[in-house]
Amino acid sequence: MNKIAVFPGSFDPITVGHVDLLKRSIPLFDKIIVAIGINSTKKTLYSLEQRKAWIEKVFKGYDTVEVKDYTGLTINFCKTENANYILRGIRSAADFEYEKTIAHLNHSMNENIETILMLSPPELSSISSTIVREIIYGKGDVSKFVPKEVLEGI
Amino acid sequence: MNKIAVFPGSFDPITVGHVDLLKRSIPLFDKIIVAIGINSTKKTLYSLEQRKAWIEKVFKGYDTVEVKDYTGLTINFCKTENANYILRGIRSAADFEYEKTIAHLNHSMNENIETILMLSPPELSSISSTIVREIIYGKGDVSKFVPKEVLEGI
Amino acid sequence: MNKIAVFPGSFDPITVGHVDLLKRSIPLFDKIIVAIGINSTKKTLYSLEQRKAWIEKVFKGYDTVEVKDYTGLTINFCKTENANYILRGIRSAADFEYEKTIAHLNHSMNENIETILMLSPPELSSISSTIVREIIYGKGDVSKFVPKEVLEGI
Amino acid sequence: MNKIAVFPGSFDPITVGHVDLLKRSIPLFDKIIVAIGINSTKKTLYSLEQRKAWIEKVFKGYDTVEVKDYTGLTINFCKTENANYILRGIRSAADFEYEKTIAHLNHSMNENIETILMLSPPELSSISSTIVREIIYGKGDVSKFVPKEVLEGI
Amino acid sequence: MNKIAVFPGSFDPITVGHVDLLKRSIPLFDKIIVAIGINSTKKTLYSLEQRKAWIEKVFKGYDTVEVKDYTGLTINFCKTENANYILRGIRSAADFEYEKTIAHLNHSMNENIETILMLSPPELSSISSTIVREIIYGKGDVSKFVPKEVLEGI
Amino acid sequence: MNKIAVFPGSFDPITVGHVDLLKRSIPLFDKIIVAIGINSTKKTLYSLEQRKAWIEKVFKGYDTVEVKDYTGLTINFCKTENANYILRGIRSAADFEYEKTIAHLNHSMNENIETILMLSPPELSSISSTIVREIIYGKGDVSKFVPKEVLEGI
Repeated sequence: MNKIAVFPGSFDPITVGHVDLLKRSIPLFDKIIVAIGINSTKKTLYSLEQRKAWIEKVFKGYDTVEVKDYTGLTINFCKTENANYILRGIRSAADFEYEKTIAHLNHSMNENIETILMLSPPELSSISSTIVREIIYGKGDVSKFVPKEVLEGI
Repeated sequence: MNKIAVFPGSFDPITVGHVDLLKRSIPLFDKIIVAIGINSTKKTLYSLEQRKAWIEKVFKGYDTVEVKDYTGLTINFCKTENANYILRGIRSAADFEYEKTIAHLNHSMNENIETILMLSPPELSSISSTIVREIIYGKGDVSKFVPKEVLEGI
Repeated sequence: MNKIAVFPGSFDPITVGHVDLLKRSIPLFDKIIVAIGINSTKKTLYSLEQRKAWIEKVFKGYDTVEVKDYTGLTINFCKTENANYILRGIRSAADFEYEKTIAHLNHSMNENIETILMLSPPELSSISSTIVREIIYGKGDVSKFVPKEVLEGI
Repeated sequence: MNKIAVFPGSFDPITVGHVDLLKRSIPLFDKIIVAIGINSTKKTLYSLEQRKAWIEKVFKGYDTVEVKDYTGLTINFCKTENANYILRGIRSAADFEYEKTIAHLNHSMNENIETILMLSPPELSSISSTIVREIIYGKGDVSKFVPKEVLEGI
Repeated sequence: MNKIAVFPGSFDPITVGHVDLLKRSIPLFDKIIVAIGINSTKKTLYSLEQRKAWIEKVFKGYDTVEVKDYTGLTINFCKTENANYILRGIRSAADFEYEKTIAHLNHSMNENIETILMLSPPELSSISSTIVREIIYGKGDVSKFVPKEVLEGI
Repeated sequence: MNKIAVFPGSFDPITVGHVDLLKRSIPLFDKIIVAIGINSTKKTLYSLEQRKAWIEKVFKGYDTVEVKDYTGLTINFCKTENANYILRGIRSAADFEYEKTIAHLNHSMNENIETILMLSPPELSSISSTIVREIIYGKGDVSKFVPKEVLEGI
């Protein structure tokens, strides 16, 4: 059986935290799908096309990383993609409580999907897309927080 | 003195977690008022009438359970109803912090009202109305998360 | 059915936090058993007799409060006493996590026993028997933290 | 070197919790700037002028307290004001997680700015501007939660 | 490169929580070493031989699971075994804080070792070896909490 | 009035986390007393003399830093030293809950003493004396976790 993981998020924009976690998890899976969830009720700062293009640029040359988008529940997307793993990074106890709730619900809807949690290294554990957007909004410098491919495009 | 408890919430919709907690707390009180708080600034998925009808259907035959709605502060509603207890379920440490803040404020505004906290059983501790609405939105299956009376109506 | 609650602890010594919580919960139950758990592997500062005597003195005249001691699991003691409720105070998120674990285990061993959690008022939420013992050890003043019946005896 | 602290917030409105913390921190700094952050995407209950006027009234006669407003990132405002300290109150573990994230980001953008955290006393630890606004909205009594200068104006 | 994971613990005794997590993680790794840490300063309830025998019995027939014991730091043991992954279960926010600290330290001592965190299903999330030992000590029934191989031997 | 802070701890041994926090707090106070608490019931890895000598060596040349030891309650020691501030580092939500409890108790025993909390930078937030002792016990490398003055002496 192939080990396929879905790494879901809005990636608005992708951060160095996402990139670090993805690169560290590549050896563990046969394929990782970076899955951009589309939620029509939430406004994003960057368009779906832009967010997708950035991730593809960052992971160019990484054969086992794919970028897709999806609507609806993550576990349904997993089934469509034959993925048995959901990959998530956790930075704080608050993140943990959220992930636990979602993982338990996913498990109760589909027992075959496992959630794999990985930790950010300490120097990256304060970074999130939300924070990056706030710094951009406040006209601050995000060069330490996003990959250079994003930096060139914002 | 009668032991009257208010169980406040938006119940948008009522979940199996609410139902479980209410049924377990019935022996403790002479009357329990399921109190739907109306907050005109927040949009709900289901109308007040619909939410009320579902709860009444679920608790038909339970003589000590009433369903009401209210505006304004919960402690003011308690006073109107001669209720001395506010009943709340807690699932996580985050829930706890929130309940503590509210309970302390209520206590500082009215010393006679006690907050009684009860825990969800582990298999229900990931369920919330918010999550149910997200699953409905994502076209997922909520049959494990809401009582059958709600399931028939959504 | 009588509403009998067990309020378990080591009460080494009883604090104003315990007293406050007990007095507030008296109206809710037909009988409350203050249950001193005996754990032969843990050393206590005060003897069982002393701890018992203090609690009895504080609750003299409260007809529905009894003081007992027990060994073994709390849920087994509840069964012996025909108690359906375990009463616990929670002060912090850490307390909550601990109580949740114990309550879930108790529930999985005996479905008929409910755990009722009550909050300390903010000005009492830093007090615990552990802290009181440390202040006594450091020769500090505990007059704000223990009932006067204890203060006279230490 | 002068010790200048920035105390950032939206102060919508200033609460007795803010006032307590500011008064306790006055001896520690040569100047404290109460800094009202302007975020054009968030609606406030009171106008900037009103919020400013209240704070100035409360701290009239306190020579080392100034009230200013700013847009953009707090650390950029600190640099403009030659402030080396950001002063923040924390009430709960949730507050702590938030402050840690912000402090680490600020530190990674400017190593010279220290965040100083102070605790609220227990009886004030449930008060926040958000809660005060909700009580006002619910037509409750906020006289214990805001300074008298605010109470006269709402 | 082979994917070898170390699953460290004291397993005093192994619980159904450990067994569940191990079985779910088997597909992810080429080899999993259940690693019993020996700490001469901590007294265990069961001997090393007994704990080892139980785990071997439970995982008989699982070709990719090995049982070993070690002294000293877990990351040093990983190096000896050519393991690049440390596998850990997390049940609560408190567990998370502990695992984060250890994972960050391990990472700062050896960048090549990743910590993989997996969640317990809700019905197992209150079980730990510590709790099992306390129930055994209180003469309670642990049949829901340990595998049948352990139950026969205690 | 002089600003005198007490920085209490067991410093068994002093870590780079302690050193970082102390150096960053020096500009804020006229004098900082590094106060080694003596608790005759707890065994330490290093003798009081050794722990004291290391701290003195690290802070040689820092005129406003003193090293003392004390028994009994920290707030009593503060009074003896005319200190109005207790300085504490916090790394995690668990640390925060502990510090809040202690700070509230101290405040209820002496209103004039303020607790000032400072955060560790992320790369130091997993370091503690407890962890350092465990790594030493496991014969690991602590060169990143203790100042060079300690490293030469262990």
